[in-house]
Amino acid sequence: MKPRGPTLLAVPALIAKKRDGRALTDAELEAIISGAVRGTIPDYQLAALLMAIVWRGLGPRELVTWTQAMIDSGERMSWKALPGPTVDKHSTGGVGDKVSLCLAPLCAAAGLYVPMMAGRALGHTGGTLDKLETIPGFRTALEPAAFRRVLSQAGFVLAGQSARLAPADRLLYALRDATATVESIPLIASSILSKKIAEGAGALVMDVKVGSGAFLPARSRARTLARALIGLGGRLGLRVRAVLSDMDQPLGAAIGNAVEVREAIDVLRGEGPADLRALTVRLGAEMLVLGRRARDLRDGARRIERAIASGAGLERLLLGVRLQGGDPRVVEHPERLPRARRQQVIRAPRAGVVVRADAGALGRAATLLGAGRLRKEDPIAPGAALMLHAKVGGAVARGDALCTLHYDDPARAAAAAPLVARAFQVGARAPRPVPLVLETLGPVR
Amino acid sequence: MKPRGPTLLAVPALIAKKRDGRALTDAELEAIISGAVRGTIPDYQLAALLMAIVWRGLGPRELVTWTQAMIDSGERMSWKALPGPTVDKHSTGGVGDKVSLCLAPLCAAAGLYVPMMAGRALGHTGGTLDKLETIPGFRTALEPAAFRRVLSQAGFVLAGQSARLAPADRLLYALRDATATVESIPLIASSILSKKIAEGAGALVMDVKVGSGAFLPARSRARTLARALIGLGGRLGLRVRAVLSDMDQPLGAAIGNAVEVREAIDVLRGEGPADLRALTVRLGAEMLVLGRRARDLRDGARRIERAIASGAGLERLLLGVRLQGGDPRVVEHPERLPRARRQQVIRAPRAGVVVRADAGALGRAATLLGAGRLRKEDPIAPGAALMLHAKVGGAVARGDALCTLHYDDPARAAAAAPLVARAFQVGARAPRPVPLVLETLGPVR
Repeated sequence: MKPRGPTLLAVPALIAKKRDGRALTDAELEAIISGAVRGTIPDYQLAALLMAIVWRGLGPRELVTWTQAMIDSGERMSWKALPGPTVDKHSTGGVGDKVSLCLAPLCAAAGLYVPMMAGRALGHTGGTLDKLETIPGFRTALEPAAFRRVLSQAGFVLAGQSARLAPADRLLYALRDATATVESIPLIASSILSKKIAEGAGALVMDVKVGSGAFLPARSRARTLARALIGLGGRLGLRVRAVLSDMDQPLGAAIGNAVEVREAIDVLRGEGPADLRALTVRLGAEMLVLGRRARDLRDGARRIERAIASGAGLERLLLGVRLQGGDPRVVEHPERLPRARRQQVIRAPRAGVVVRADAGALGRAATLLGAGRLRKEDPIAPGAALMLHAKVGGAVARGDALCTLHYDDPARAAAAAPLVARAFQVGARAPRPVPLVLETLGPVR
Repeated sequence: MKPRGPTLLAVPALIAKKRDGRALTDAELEAIISGAVRGTIPDYQLAALLMAIVWRGLGPRELVTWTQAMIDSGERMSWKALPGPTVDKHSTGGVGDKVSLCLAPLCAAAGLYVPMMAGRALGHTGGTLDKLETIPGFRTALEPAAFRRVLSQAGFVLAGQSARLAPADRLLYALRDATATVESIPLIASSILSKKIAEGAGALVMDVKVGSGAFLPARSRARTLARALIGLGGRLGLRVRAVLSDMDQPLGAAIGNAVEVREAIDVLRGEGPADLRALTVRLGAEMLVLGRRARDLRDGARRIERAIASGAGLERLLLGVRLQGGDPRVVEHPERLPRARRQQVIRAPRAGVVVRADAGALGRAATLLGAGRLRKEDPIAPGAALMLHAKVGGAVARGDALCTLHYDDPARAAAAAPLVARAFQVGARAPRPVPLVLETLGPVR
């Protein structure tokens, strides 16, 4: 008999095993990741396997092996030489979520090192890299040496995912995106943690969004993901604390790219919307406690507040922007950021209280305006934005501005405006207030 | 906004719809099949969708639309001009199942036209085309004109699937085979019936095998498939009758390619194993009733028996072989068929009764010997065979031959022999006899 390659014979058998609900062995999982990276397993077999995993899941042992194999597919950074603890924050993605932009410099000012690798806008959620790139000259693609230099000097770095880290995740993520196999708790958990562990952070605070603008709208699913991340992190030596936060309405008032940079700078100046500031302080406090730079959450919150009040956070942002090639004048004069030429106001159809400002719908409207992208190759309009004038619980008179669309292309505004109008609901009575932080899970330190 | 092609945006949404258990619309299903055939939907998206269909199934309406779209992807043959009814038989595949080879000429002799498009061996089951090609000169690849000519002259034709019929099925089947998405009742049903309906038969008898050598071993699954075929056929205008028959032990005594042609000729000569002859007569009777060439099953069986006794069936085979370019002397002198050079006998380890002759294990052993193929591109050894000397219920003395391996390559025999030995079980008491035909489903006429 002639020898048979593993691909044709073995891979359908492995897919069948998962399809039938049986667990794959360590050797099988490692062979799959390695075959995916080396290109010996074709995409269509990976796609079928991924759908079988969406269906059947991965057990705890399988998930550890799968994630470890993704980490081992590339390089792994180490920050042992730094004089302080490394702690990162990651969000499952939201609408108006510019927390990273103010949180990273604040934590750096409070004594942490934050090696933050961020993503781009896709679907209705924004991306930190797209926001940063509205700062003229700002480079998000950093070589490892530059990444290291910015981190050690500024105490934080905000850059794109290096292609050298967890290349298996990059490959599988692109395939999942094209095959509707993104929404699987174990696949999401392994994707996030393989990158974060390869990135070398010692601890991670996960901001798991809940609500209409979240990747996993249902609180129960968000909690399941949070638990999976904490469990998987624990088995792989990464301390993970998860914060479930509300994303049923957008965070802050600004949705867009340049406007979100501006709003993050506002927070560093001691201004900005209350919810954005509160979530920044809370997540910063969690990070400081995890990094053992604060005794408890109260102490951590106080340290973040102090970094705001003293201007230390803003100084760190200024330093980081300069080190990454960005125009530092933007930090002092955010009006230098790109702006859209036209505006259109959406007004309250009647007097009352805002009972809904649907984050999912507003995110989709912002994407239609050009603030996000439906396809990876779509360009971003840096000045396209929605500015919210009212949030849930706010009282409005008939004809009051609820939201302003900022745009260049009238056709895009025409498409987005009805979506924005429908996203708001004005009722007679104020709704029961929803706390911004719904619950926290995971080890405190 | 720039226009977006349907592929990137719409296909993941369609996959997600099926993944979440929702039904696809007619337009969506048609777009998928059409995109698959035109090559605008990449294999990895189809693979993910197929796995989602294995998971979630297809509802009756979805299945009709999916199958109709597969039929409409190619040409459709018509036999309206023939002076008699067209009835086909299809089996889900078994070990030692050479029924088609004797059944088609017998039904032709009894007044039917049998336009049979057959398949090749894959996995542990044999393929009619591989068997026929052991006849020197026999051509299984027929152009439509030749197919038509052989059918009208011989009353039957045994040929390969034309690439012009249901090309969507050909494409999807190759992908399913590589992605462990074959085993889905709706996908199986649509694959079988799209080809059979495109082939133009007026009615179809399905031999759904049950037992260890069957594609779907469990009787309940086999029955589910039978019902799906009958229901789908009914909605698409094809009368389908399903016979569930035993495949827990091989059919007849011969497993292999040339040996199975010989055994089929034996049946046409009024010889051959009882089970093979009985199933041939029964399936033939069902076909005659469906084709309205017999009043009832008893009348049908009598007509098939008469075609055996008169030699009319053998004559038809001779004619068919000649029309398809094969050496007709083989029909008179089957010893001209290829033979393997070596033999090895597997003997009963003790006296008793054969309680098991595992069709699945024997099929895999025959494949190891070279009678089948593990991969599509593997060659077939035409003389490689297992010849059973005892079947379930047969009494044996210690050392009696249970089975002879016919082979050329000793390494292959060494691999197959232990599998053959383990496939047989000799016990003290005769097992409860299992009927060959377990049940029949579907309309009688």
